[in-house]
Amino acid sequence: MLRSSVLNLCKLFSVFHESPKQSVNTIKKCGNIHKIRFGRFLTHRCKQTVTAQQHHQVARNEIKTTQNFNTFTYRTHTCGELRPNNIGEKVTLCGWVQYLRLNKFILLRDSYGITQCIINNDSINLTNIPLETIVKIDGKVQARPTAAINNNMNTGEIEVEIDKMEILNIAEKVPFNLRNYQIPKEQLRLQHRYIDLRFPKMQQNLRLRSLMLHNVRRFLVEKHGFVEVETPTLFCQTPGGAREFVVPTHHAGLFYSLVQSPQQFKQMLMAGGCDRYFQIARCYRDETTRPDRQPEFTQLDIEQSFTNLDNILTMIEKLLYETMIKDLPKPPFMRITYKDALENYGTDKPNLTYELKIKNVTNLFSKSNDCVGLTAFALPYPNKLGKLTAKYKEKISELKKKYAVRVIHNENISKELSTDLSNKIQNIIGEYNSSVIAIGDNEQVCLCLGEIRELLAQLLHSKGLIEIKEDIVPLWVVDFPLFVKGENGLETRHHPFTAPHPNDIHLLDSEPLKVRSLAYDIVMNGNEIGGGSVRVHNVDLQEKLLKMLNIDPNKLTHFMNALRSGCPPHAGIALGIDRLMTLACDANSIRDVIAFPKSHEGKDPLSGAPNVISEDDKKYYHINIVK
Amino acid sequence: MLRSSVLNLCKLFSVFHESPKQSVNTIKKCGNIHKIRFGRFLTHRCKQTVTAQQHHQVARNEIKTTQNFNTFTYRTHTCGELRPNNIGEKVTLCGWVQYLRLNKFILLRDSYGITQCIINNDSINLTNIPLETIVKIDGKVQARPTAAINNNMNTGEIEVEIDKMEILNIAEKVPFNLRNYQIPKEQLRLQHRYIDLRFPKMQQNLRLRSLMLHNVRRFLVEKHGFVEVETPTLFCQTPGGAREFVVPTHHAGLFYSLVQSPQQFKQMLMAGGCDRYFQIARCYRDETTRPDRQPEFTQLDIEQSFTNLDNILTMIEKLLYETMIKDLPKPPFMRITYKDALENYGTDKPNLTYELKIKNVTNLFSKSNDCVGLTAFALPYPNKLGKLTAKYKEKISELKKKYAVRVIHNENISKELSTDLSNKIQNIIGEYNSSVIAIGDNEQVCLCLGEIRELLAQLLHSKGLIEIKEDIVPLWVVDFPLFVKGENGLETRHHPFTAPHPNDIHLLDSEPLKVRSLAYDIVMNGNEIGGGSVRVHNVDLQEKLLKMLNIDPNKLTHFMNALRSGCPPHAGIALGIDRLMTLACDANSIRDVIAFPKSHEGKDPLSGAPNVISEDDKKYYHINIVK
Repeated sequence: MLRSSVLNLCKLFSVFHESPKQSVNTIKKCGNIHKIRFGRFLTHRCKQTVTAQQHHQVARNEIKTTQNFNTFTYRTHTCGELRPNNIGEKVTLCGWVQYLRLNKFILLRDSYGITQCIINNDSINLTNIPLETIVKIDGKVQARPTAAINNNMNTGEIEVEIDKMEILNIAEKVPFNLRNYQIPKEQLRLQHRYIDLRFPKMQQNLRLRSLMLHNVRRFLVEKHGFVEVETPTLFCQTPGGAREFVVPTHHAGLFYSLVQSPQQFKQMLMAGGCDRYFQIARCYRDETTRPDRQPEFTQLDIEQSFTNLDNILTMIEKLLYETMIKDLPKPPFMRITYKDALENYGTDKPNLTYELKIKNVTNLFSKSNDCVGLTAFALPYPNKLGKLTAKYKEKISELKKKYAVRVIHNENISKELSTDLSNKIQNIIGEYNSSVIAIGDNEQVCLCLGEIRELLAQLLHSKGLIEIKEDIVPLWVVDFPLFVKGENGLETRHHPFTAPHPNDIHLLDSEPLKVRSLAYDIVMNGNEIGGGSVRVHNVDLQEKLLKMLNIDPNKLTHFMNALRSGCPPHAGIALGIDRLMTLACDANSIRDVIAFPKSHEGKDPLSGAPNVISEDDKKYYHINIVK
Repeated sequence: MLRSSVLNLCKLFSVFHESPKQSVNTIKKCGNIHKIRFGRFLTHRCKQTVTAQQHHQVARNEIKTTQNFNTFTYRTHTCGELRPNNIGEKVTLCGWVQYLRLNKFILLRDSYGITQCIINNDSINLTNIPLETIVKIDGKVQARPTAAINNNMNTGEIEVEIDKMEILNIAEKVPFNLRNYQIPKEQLRLQHRYIDLRFPKMQQNLRLRSLMLHNVRRFLVEKHGFVEVETPTLFCQTPGGAREFVVPTHHAGLFYSLVQSPQQFKQMLMAGGCDRYFQIARCYRDETTRPDRQPEFTQLDIEQSFTNLDNILTMIEKLLYETMIKDLPKPPFMRITYKDALENYGTDKPNLTYELKIKNVTNLFSKSNDCVGLTAFALPYPNKLGKLTAKYKEKISELKKKYAVRVIHNENISKELSTDLSNKIQNIIGEYNSSVIAIGDNEQVCLCLGEIRELLAQLLHSKGLIEIKEDIVPLWVVDFPLFVKGENGLETRHHPFTAPHPNDIHLLDSEPLKVRSLAYDIVMNGNEIGGGSVRVHNVDLQEKLLKMLNIDPNKLTHFMNALRSGCPPHAGIALGIDRLMTLACDANSIRDVIAFPKSHEGKDPLSGAPNVISEDDKKYYHINIVK
């Protein structure tokens, strides 16, 4: 089973995963400062480590049978693997000086763990070695004196008596040390990422990311015969999508665009007989002004011929269930329509880790003047919360403006609405007894209450009034509208290659905004993790849709010709790996699962990129800067 | 064993691999045109298919036990998998109409094979179905009449009796059909790549590429605990490298550069504790004016801490030996120094699939005026070749000019040199008896004879006078010079982060051009497949080298700080996957192992990219075009 093999591979991280409980015990039990610090170092635990720990209920000895971390190096062991059965062995360790004590002990750290090394030799002087210096130690493994045994450390029963120590590279004063109790601000971490990456948490994130993607490949290639095809990133502009970076060439005035996804290529691959395609693809979007977006990101891109919506959903459920490093519910995942998502949760990406739901109460208003021609929704919540704070009300005021709807707080319902109406509302909202009402345009009301729902959930949770699950709750949202109303006519809800729902195709000319599509999004805990659709394979339908969207089909001649050449029906999906890994690792931001992320505004905190370019480059690329 | 698993995975292609011999027999035996054509379709064999065939000596039934190509689709089988044991089964096949005959037979093709389908039903009319139309066929597997059995076809013992046929997507007239005996010119193929990819050879190349890369990952991740880390492609310019594409941002005048390799990132990962890193990375170089280069290409990028030159070479040998889909000699591979490569083969990437070697004959000229202060080399070759043709002599004349050396053809040796000298040369060149002599600057003479060696080898081989092996002959070239003389002083031979050879480090100030580096190249059959080096990890040495190269270390502050922060000694390599796969697949050009290659000058034959951009884009990116 692939799932068990994921877990097997996860084992290797057990070297720096010890339970928070154990580490706390270490701190409690140990009398001296050093041990407390050391205990704390190992205590760098977040929620996810506990979850990871659940996967790591394994004998640590098994690790070596599957992977060898010392091949092709001059160390014999990592700093995390020596055990009592190694006592007496001559070993070579390499790593960073994590801590020095009494001019006698070195705690030597690498990304696999920490080993205590001890000097019984006057010729080695530790006094002038800065922390984070890289050393190579030859020595002999010995048992620790009984009093010095640390059962909460993987290597806590042994130490290495140093025969020879070589300083491989001396560290100058580093801007921060690797102490989990004093993790620096993100700006400093990003600026010195080459040090920040040494934190166990960052090592864990990168290593789990690598393993998870490897297992995704095993699932797709080995079990299901998919073919990974690399497609170009330098391409032509896609009409009607996000803003794409342009790349000047030495042909004056001619530019490539960096692809926002391999969409056109994967569809041409379907025409080309690569009927089970995937790619873990780098994609680019110039949306650097949005927070938590990166100008480049990674997408698991999948496309299949001779398939349909149900098949794609089943495949992705299976793939995630078998490869995800955090537990998922057994497939099938829940499916709801876009309409239901909007009318129950006020969003197209509902967070179902808690239970609040909004309710349509428009019919209660039938005899009232408060809601003529409008829609009213209520968001019931536990009445123990009491009056809302000013801060919270202020946020709601902002949302009122944003969505142009009327919002009535629970405490004002009886003031603002008739007694009859407020009683009716009270009757319908059920167990919770409190509610927020919003009145206005149907969609705007729902979206507004959707955002209030999230605010309220955090507030209620912080007071222990509702439970928010720590699990991942995945669901599919389907039956999206094919079009949305844009400033200049119809716009596509997903992209121009999405197939209309066969049951609605007769409405294309008469009521296009009522046409649903065969698109689907996968949502986890309020995050859109991915989306896809059944594609249009018929060239006439594709041409019609492009024209409805005001896109000139002649800009896509190559693509239209591919549909004409005998293109199989096909469907696919793309999953955002950065977001998926953020969830899988319980990280705070996508920047914590990316080795070298850009900061806000797309700047590289390390190198300072983007930078000015030379006159020679400007000349070569035939461009001038306009300030 | 991983190697056997590669072979196992290769099995799946056996569906369209039948030996050339079999197919030729098919043609000989079959009387009717259709069968000849069909036989020829299967005869699309190149050299490499034979080699692949050697890997495919497997029971075809095993395929299904490892991979399932029909999950998540509405077909039950591919067009390559039905066998007599399926007789009686109801099946659903999908594919392209490859051939129609007698309004009764359809040859249905997908990327896994071809199945003959037969109509015993008046309601289905085949006359108006264009070839390459996509159909779905429900039917029953039946045995072919004995006379119709085709033992050279995987599915040749059965046919499918059609119950129902659905046209999924009709093909308009395609610019070329999928006939291996009439493969169109490359320009047309690239322009309609979505059709060209249907050719079995292209399918094979892409599928083998996917499998080989998957197995590289299995080797690195599962056996040796490497971590795949994705690094940015939008970065700052690297001083002193190839020309890098620039990407304007909406910050006026500020540009990213597209990375030419993850070099700086992987070294920072070493500083960051990712001590066993790899990445199958997209890289960019604006060198579109060189033939057989792509503006973007794929590189297997590997870096390790706590290692040395021998370890990296051993790792790569093991990796290639275990994952390469074409047989390689058992490691260790041959190693020669740059000096020996130059003086024996006249190149730093010797092709050792044939035996010609050049010889230094300078000492024979000691008493002659022909070679005062110069070097003379001879290239001996079999004397049966006779006089060289005019065309060949013309090429040599070009090389003479290019390298500014004197070249003496075999037939002119006795005319141009003294009898004594020509006798001495005759004595020394050994068994071959003929030779070309070149006299001039040492390096230029060698390089000139290196090119002549290649020309001559092809000529001799075409006349059956020397053997050229079809195997891959890998070798390492080591001990490169650290610097080369550039127009404005010293330039780096590899890149500025390459470590000098420890035995030569005392020459850095006095005779820098004599300093060797710890760089290494892996060469196969005259192609540089990859290269790497032990890196500089000491910040003072790095600063010294940058200054010698006239590179301002302040342009690399982030990098220098990483070296200062406790950076382990490290070394690595990068292999060019496009070139490697070209060899592995015996393809004619890297374009045959890339799904959507650009043509010469970096143009995309499909979409026409690069294109003009909009005024809005120019404004957004603050650029003007200068024509």
